[in-house]
Amino acid sequence: MRCEVVAVGTELLLGQIVDTNSAWIGEQLALVGIDSHFQTKVGDNLDRIVAALRGSLERSEAVIVCGGLGPTHDDITRSALAAVMGVELRRDPEVADAIRHMFESRGRAMPGNNLLQADVPEGATVIEQRRGTAPGLICPMGDQVLYAVPGVPHEMREMMERAILPDLRRRAGATATILSRTLRTWGDSESGLAERLADRIAELDERGNPTLAFLASGIEGLKVRITAKGPDEAGCREVLAYEEHVIRQLLGELVFGTDDETMEVAVGALLDAQGLRLGLAESLTGGMIGSRLTATPGASAWFRGSVVAYASDVKFEVLGVPEGPVVTAEAAEAMAAGACRVLGADVGLAVTGVAGPAEQDGERPGTVFVGLSRDSGTESVRLQLPGDRDRVREFATITALDLLRHRLLSRRA
Amino acid sequence: MRCEVVAVGTELLLGQIVDTNSAWIGEQLALVGIDSHFQTKVGDNLDRIVAALRGSLERSEAVIVCGGLGPTHDDITRSALAAVMGVELRRDPEVADAIRHMFESRGRAMPGNNLLQADVPEGATVIEQRRGTAPGLICPMGDQVLYAVPGVPHEMREMMERAILPDLRRRAGATATILSRTLRTWGDSESGLAERLADRIAELDERGNPTLAFLASGIEGLKVRITAKGPDEAGCREVLAYEEHVIRQLLGELVFGTDDETMEVAVGALLDAQGLRLGLAESLTGGMIGSRLTATPGASAWFRGSVVAYASDVKFEVLGVPEGPVVTAEAAEAMAAGACRVLGADVGLAVTGVAGPAEQDGERPGTVFVGLSRDSGTESVRLQLPGDRDRVREFATITALDLLRHRLLSRRA
Repeated sequence: MRCEVVAVGTELLLGQIVDTNSAWIGEQLALVGIDSHFQTKVGDNLDRIVAALRGSLERSEAVIVCGGLGPTHDDITRSALAAVMGVELRRDPEVADAIRHMFESRGRAMPGNNLLQADVPEGATVIEQRRGTAPGLICPMGDQVLYAVPGVPHEMREMMERAILPDLRRRAGATATILSRTLRTWGDSESGLAERLADRIAELDERGNPTLAFLASGIEGLKVRITAKGPDEAGCREVLAYEEHVIRQLLGELVFGTDDETMEVAVGALLDAQGLRLGLAESLTGGMIGSRLTATPGASAWFRGSVVAYASDVKFEVLGVPEGPVVTAEAAEAMAAGACRVLGADVGLAVTGVAGPAEQDGERPGTVFVGLSRDSGTESVRLQLPGDRDRVREFATITALDLLRHRLLSRRA
Repeated sequence: MRCEVVAVGTELLLGQIVDTNSAWIGEQLALVGIDSHFQTKVGDNLDRIVAALRGSLERSEAVIVCGGLGPTHDDITRSALAAVMGVELRRDPEVADAIRHMFESRGRAMPGNNLLQADVPEGATVIEQRRGTAPGLICPMGDQVLYAVPGVPHEMREMMERAILPDLRRRAGATATILSRTLRTWGDSESGLAERLADRIAELDERGNPTLAFLASGIEGLKVRITAKGPDEAGCREVLAYEEHVIRQLLGELVFGTDDETMEVAVGALLDAQGLRLGLAESLTGGMIGSRLTATPGASAWFRGSVVAYASDVKFEVLGVPEGPVVTAEAAEAMAAGACRVLGADVGLAVTGVAGPAEQDGERPGTVFVGLSRDSGTESVRLQLPGDRDRVREFATITALDLLRHRLLSRRA
């Protein structure tokens, strides 16, 4: 079964908004084993939307149209669907009631044009809207089908998962199930990982299932994606669990998380389990490490705070760093110890370095020192990071947290 | 003149990478007055790339193909172009030399498949590659034209600006020039801005040029985009300058920057000009404000640092906040004053609040207090911000900086 995606909106063609919906839908289709060979962006123009839909139906059994379902005069996806189906639009009284009710329940007056969203092509089924006002549509055409979803990403995703993916799988009959799991790593390059996994990749290449892919994702880590194909979900999960086990054996502590588990989540869980409270001293990163850590709900259990010591004399006066150059191992260690003391923390983590573009203390951009202070003493690591100012700061953040993770793992062991 | 974009790469269809290239190209085309009615994504499959190109050529005079020019067996855009043109590929000796030379100059051995990148369809012109190895192509077909550019964004952009946009404009003849300028605002809603500008929008609607559009961009502000159309660049710039003047008159200090000028840049420039040094005390935002400020090169002239006081007793002990509830106006003011004292700053800015999902100190998620401390005294503002944890933190960041901006503007006046 093949399913294309048509994203509707002049703002997409003009580059005012990047179309992330098609990419997400493509990923979901791949995971349920449905091919998507073409994805098209088209503006808010009736003839061109109709042409795009007809073109897609010539090549594929199913089409998902995304966007153009709102209440304004620009929202013409419903009319385009009716034209392609060769039917009229009829106002659905239940949908109209639901829209009226939504406005009433929020105590707001409903502009009349909102009822346009209750117009449904004859023969189409409505996908109930649970988050906004525009419902989705399932429009069967013989043995083909057109789906319409709103362009608002979270409304689209909810409808895809609840209604469209199940409907597509039912229509596709006994497709294979495809599931994937991502292992997040830090500490080795893509080619380094490939080398560590070379024998296993060769074995899997011969067998054909599961498959492995690498994806460099900056501050989110270097990801190894395992994709398993099987007759059912249970079988796929078993293959994924076994393969995760094999890869973890080969990569060891390079793996810090699975799927959505960030480095912050991994570090937070270790601190929490060991009853330790973390304090930071940030110079180069300017608060980025604290900001990432506190994006994790529950951080207050293990995160005390951060001294962002951007000016050198804040390092000297607040953190007690000895006066002198501040891009050094000694400064990083003193900052970490100062963070423990000032913030009342059990563990202190510090970052100082040169983001660029200019040199500092005779060190070139990308030179970074990470300091760590614990009851057992202080230590530091020198890094030379690639890239521009933003990349240096991001790599410094994940690398510093990764150092802490390794030390916490050893402490536990 | 119409120009379509075809983005090539199976990873785009699978959602492993979001296609940002087409959006950028679409924006550039709009700015030079060329319509782009359809943009297509297609995988690394010869027949389907050929079908996509032929479909585009049926509708448009020009097509830009993006991606699939690399050295591996997946990179088949060159072959697809030759098939559409009905010609053979010939190896270009100059391009081959340039590729060999690039590897030699970096002291690296050249894998033989790199020379595939020197294959050029007969009748096509090469666009010299200045950043990587794969050159671009200009393939004329009667009065139509196909362009090929690499999928690596910075290589693509450089070739678009240097070779393709000028070539397109020449072919299009006397197209209008279109230029735009964005005014960034904070402090009023989209509908509020529309109301303030209603009379001006009505005037412009009648005249048709320039046009105004609104774009909500989260922590980057609410943008008002002015787009001017004219016979030449100088004329457009004049229209933009006048319209910017008119809108600034109507919006006053709501406007904090133009085009790429962030709120951090605006605040930094004011601090720098007034010789003031800023210190932060962050709770809710966990370091996000410091991280944004230090992303600005030159921040060391006016930024001292931040005390990220996530744990309440860091607020009490380090910042001198009186013991008690910490999501209050008093706590925000004491934090701001503490930031000045601890960090040796002239101005202290503090944020405390409830990011959610749970309540704190009897306040619901989204409740935020911003404190400000200066030589003239301390003050605070209470905000109720919408959205989830991430949005509350981002809105708190830009709103706190905006408060500081207004106070610095009054001080200057």
